[in-house]
Amino acid sequence: MQILDKIKLPEDIKNLSLKELELLANDLRNVITKYTLANGGHLASNLGVVDLTCALNYVFDFPKDKLIFDVGHQCYAYKILTGRLKEFNTLRQKDGINGFPKREESQYDTVNSGHASTALSIACGMARGDIDGNIICLIGDGAMTGGLFFEALNDVLTLNKKVIFIINDNNMSISGNVGFINEYLKIVRKYGNEFTFLDIEMLNNIDGHNISDLIGKLKYAKNSKKTLVLHVVTKKGKGFTDAELNPSKYHSVGKVNAKPTYCQVFGKVMANLADKNQDIFAITAAMTDGTGLSEFAQKYPQRLIDVGIAEGHAVTMSAGLALAGKKPYVAIYSTFLQRAYDNILHDVCLNKLPVVFCIDRAGFVGGDGETHQGLYDVAYLGATPNMSIFAPKDGDELEDILTWSQSFDSPLAIRYPKNEISRNYNIHTPIEYGKWERIVESDSQIVLVSNGETLANVCESAEILKSQGIDVDVINARFIRPYDEELLDTLKGKTIFFFEEYIMQNSLYAQALDKFNKEQDDSTQIYGINIPNVSYCVATRNQLLKEVGLDTDGIVNFVKRKLN
Amino acid sequence: MQILDKIKLPEDIKNLSLKELELLANDLRNVITKYTLANGGHLASNLGVVDLTCALNYVFDFPKDKLIFDVGHQCYAYKILTGRLKEFNTLRQKDGINGFPKREESQYDTVNSGHASTALSIACGMARGDIDGNIICLIGDGAMTGGLFFEALNDVLTLNKKVIFIINDNNMSISGNVGFINEYLKIVRKYGNEFTFLDIEMLNNIDGHNISDLIGKLKYAKNSKKTLVLHVVTKKGKGFTDAELNPSKYHSVGKVNAKPTYCQVFGKVMANLADKNQDIFAITAAMTDGTGLSEFAQKYPQRLIDVGIAEGHAVTMSAGLALAGKKPYVAIYSTFLQRAYDNILHDVCLNKLPVVFCIDRAGFVGGDGETHQGLYDVAYLGATPNMSIFAPKDGDELEDILTWSQSFDSPLAIRYPKNEISRNYNIHTPIEYGKWERIVESDSQIVLVSNGETLANVCESAEILKSQGIDVDVINARFIRPYDEELLDTLKGKTIFFFEEYIMQNSLYAQALDKFNKEQDDSTQIYGINIPNVSYCVATRNQLLKEVGLDTDGIVNFVKRKLN
Repeated sequence: MQILDKIKLPEDIKNLSLKELELLANDLRNVITKYTLANGGHLASNLGVVDLTCALNYVFDFPKDKLIFDVGHQCYAYKILTGRLKEFNTLRQKDGINGFPKREESQYDTVNSGHASTALSIACGMARGDIDGNIICLIGDGAMTGGLFFEALNDVLTLNKKVIFIINDNNMSISGNVGFINEYLKIVRKYGNEFTFLDIEMLNNIDGHNISDLIGKLKYAKNSKKTLVLHVVTKKGKGFTDAELNPSKYHSVGKVNAKPTYCQVFGKVMANLADKNQDIFAITAAMTDGTGLSEFAQKYPQRLIDVGIAEGHAVTMSAGLALAGKKPYVAIYSTFLQRAYDNILHDVCLNKLPVVFCIDRAGFVGGDGETHQGLYDVAYLGATPNMSIFAPKDGDELEDILTWSQSFDSPLAIRYPKNEISRNYNIHTPIEYGKWERIVESDSQIVLVSNGETLANVCESAEILKSQGIDVDVINARFIRPYDEELLDTLKGKTIFFFEEYIMQNSLYAQALDKFNKEQDDSTQIYGINIPNVSYCVATRNQLLKEVGLDTDGIVNFVKRKLN
Repeated sequence: MQILDKIKLPEDIKNLSLKELELLANDLRNVITKYTLANGGHLASNLGVVDLTCALNYVFDFPKDKLIFDVGHQCYAYKILTGRLKEFNTLRQKDGINGFPKREESQYDTVNSGHASTALSIACGMARGDIDGNIICLIGDGAMTGGLFFEALNDVLTLNKKVIFIINDNNMSISGNVGFINEYLKIVRKYGNEFTFLDIEMLNNIDGHNISDLIGKLKYAKNSKKTLVLHVVTKKGKGFTDAELNPSKYHSVGKVNAKPTYCQVFGKVMANLADKNQDIFAITAAMTDGTGLSEFAQKYPQRLIDVGIAEGHAVTMSAGLALAGKKPYVAIYSTFLQRAYDNILHDVCLNKLPVVFCIDRAGFVGGDGETHQGLYDVAYLGATPNMSIFAPKDGDELEDILTWSQSFDSPLAIRYPKNEISRNYNIHTPIEYGKWERIVESDSQIVLVSNGETLANVCESAEILKSQGIDVDVINARFIRPYDEELLDTLKGKTIFFFEEYIMQNSLYAQALDKFNKEQDDSTQIYGINIPNVSYCVATRNQLLKEVGLDTDGIVNFVKRKLN
């Protein structure tokens, strides 16, 4: 590295020459590429904003000035330049540097943000709070399709405070852009400087890789008294040839899986079901690849609807499809589906419409950290009327429930994790509504209950316990709502352990406690481990499972401790 | 009535002359005014769309064609014309006509919708489902500030299907319009026909009270092959002089309260606190009057922020205010705050920001029915890290917690109901974080626990029980999260009853069950009544409390039954 080593704090950047700034950008690209390929993360997006980040640090005085990222995943160069070069090799690892801005990590990070479209709203609030410094939003990567962005835009137009609002226009959301802001930007790109942005002054078509030009425009913005928009054109993956050529592939890189993932099975099954069932539609919010729907999209482009980052619309629009007699499958990650809670409750559940929610990234998510954990879906989906919830134990069961769901006439959620399918059970109990499945049956007085991928650890624990002379039965509680009351009744008088990878609200443990309490049954012992409702930093799923006691050792020890 | 009596079904309207249509509109206004003033409901909005509704029924063939209301509360004339004249006197009453579209009520109602900004999303889905008929959205009353509307608009622009999209422009959201669609409409109103709406054909400045003109334009829309926008200018409250003059007052009419409401106390206290605390901001989503903030707005207009119907932005913007060192109080009804669940979780709770949520209309809401019930807030707020939840027992305690909250440095939710404060306790235990309050203390082995307005029924029940020789202690469990573990510990070995006006998830009953189960305490008996998680139709709060057993009789009988 020629320059980067000398930058201890962003102030040091202000003394660099243009040539040195360019070398700095080059250094940054090398560091980002190296550690993102090693640790996983958002490579292409971060390479795209390196020059802009250098220019921002040259012109502005962080942390007095405030930079708000939208989406947060564009922050790597900023993190490195604001004192985190040494730790950057710990990117996205336990106790390491978060892949998103994080206030606890540095005073230079304005707000923790992993979900899209939030920056302008945050900016409106900070501007009203009259902070002593410039407020700069760096908005890109499709964040301008989210409804929250428009709600904030409405506010900005009448807000008599200054916000600098940079559109990072890489002509590319995570998988192809949609909507009228994009149409607007096409016109801007074509006709150049003739446009204002909804009456706000707008500097158009700034070359996002020309540091000199960027500095000039940012200085103009700094000196302006009024809100203005900088339209900066960047190239996603800039400086890394493979990423430039294939930005979607390198949007987020991770380790390659050896075994198939739930996501892959989901994609394959959906494409197959759609062959025979013309009513099936698949809906995604800018995550066609991420949710595994690429094959479906190729085979049935008319029935694959990508609404962009707009989860609320994805859900309410699906309610409309169901009203028209179609069968919509809405594929959204657990953490992002949070954004559509009222759409689920008000538009789908109160109308009892047969929409299927296919919830990937349920449970601990690993590298993306606290803003992306999929720990709440069982709770918030439980806080609606008429929603059923299912968690398949393996790929075959995911296929079974998807097949079965075609004729289910009410809202249904299917949750499954990001990771690969670790165990193949070869146990196929046909799906029956609200019915669980017995995995190990020995009439033991001790019963372990779990579901989804979490069941794999429970089965392994059961084997360990058996080898230590403790026979336990194992149940796959695949329907989380409604639970299998009939089966639970057969367990009266036994000792039941629940192991669940979500928070306690609406967990099977909580439901069972209520049931046995209402029945004034004191003969049944109930124990449970679920996820304490706090925030969880970056770590692998296995590290986090260990932390909460849902790893094999944790389960074995918990059972033995409670039995003593 | 001259004409309305003869209309059995909407087909009958097609044979009317223009003169008869005008008389019909007059009849409709009389019926709507009469029963809305008697039963409560949205008077001004419904009077405004009477002529348009007549014209729609004249031109289109419902239910083959589909009419989608946004917001749903404009549907009274439509309900009357589609076979519900006879039952209209039961508007907003138990087993009567719902104030919003309701599929279970009639095949003419396309979708149940009580929350704003959903219509265009529903329409996109129905259009993709290729239904056999026209899809018409009637969008008004500020529904165009909600982010969901923009997400849908993005979709409509690229959707190759026809949707007729009527903007009911009364230049008036519930309390004053905001944002750029409104700016756009101002220009349209001023310059007339020169505008398209984002490249969609738009018929501008249609007089919403000229039935002949409306019919002409609607016929044009019916015959068009492409999506188009009809900009219809209406007068809210048209035909009822008092409502025309004061549309905000008559937006929604209800019975006048004899005692002060929680809402009134909230407004008064906030205005007083703001006198001394310059950091306080009050944020509302088009509900300045409804949430009681009118006095605050008059005294401190700079610190009252009405973002329009845009709950997500209201919350995330408040996170920005808190980041800037201000103290935001976000006043949103329980049912509408559902729309900001991820904003609460991701922007406020994960950032541990001291935003206070003032949640009016918590619990059963009465006349508005299933889309407006405030039964989920405790569950969805519980499904976040770092959120504390409080329910005051009376107006004094609401004042106490608001005062106390000024120095609380983490997210806090305060929930209170729509109704008047039925009981003044004159018991002031100073607020201490996570601590409950003893109301009746006699060292009885039986303890009744409740909070909020629900506690009033519990106290009355305790008095009845006492008169029957059953002494019970009563506890005001005002902090729902965190619960008072220390106090609960003193109750070990006793019989504890929980009475709570929200669903079971994250209820105190559920939390206590978990606590005593984890401690393997079998000596304590726990019973609870909370709200079963199903949908609740229109009925008074008292009728609904009776239905779930939270009325005084229900509580007394429950306690006696369990003690036997």
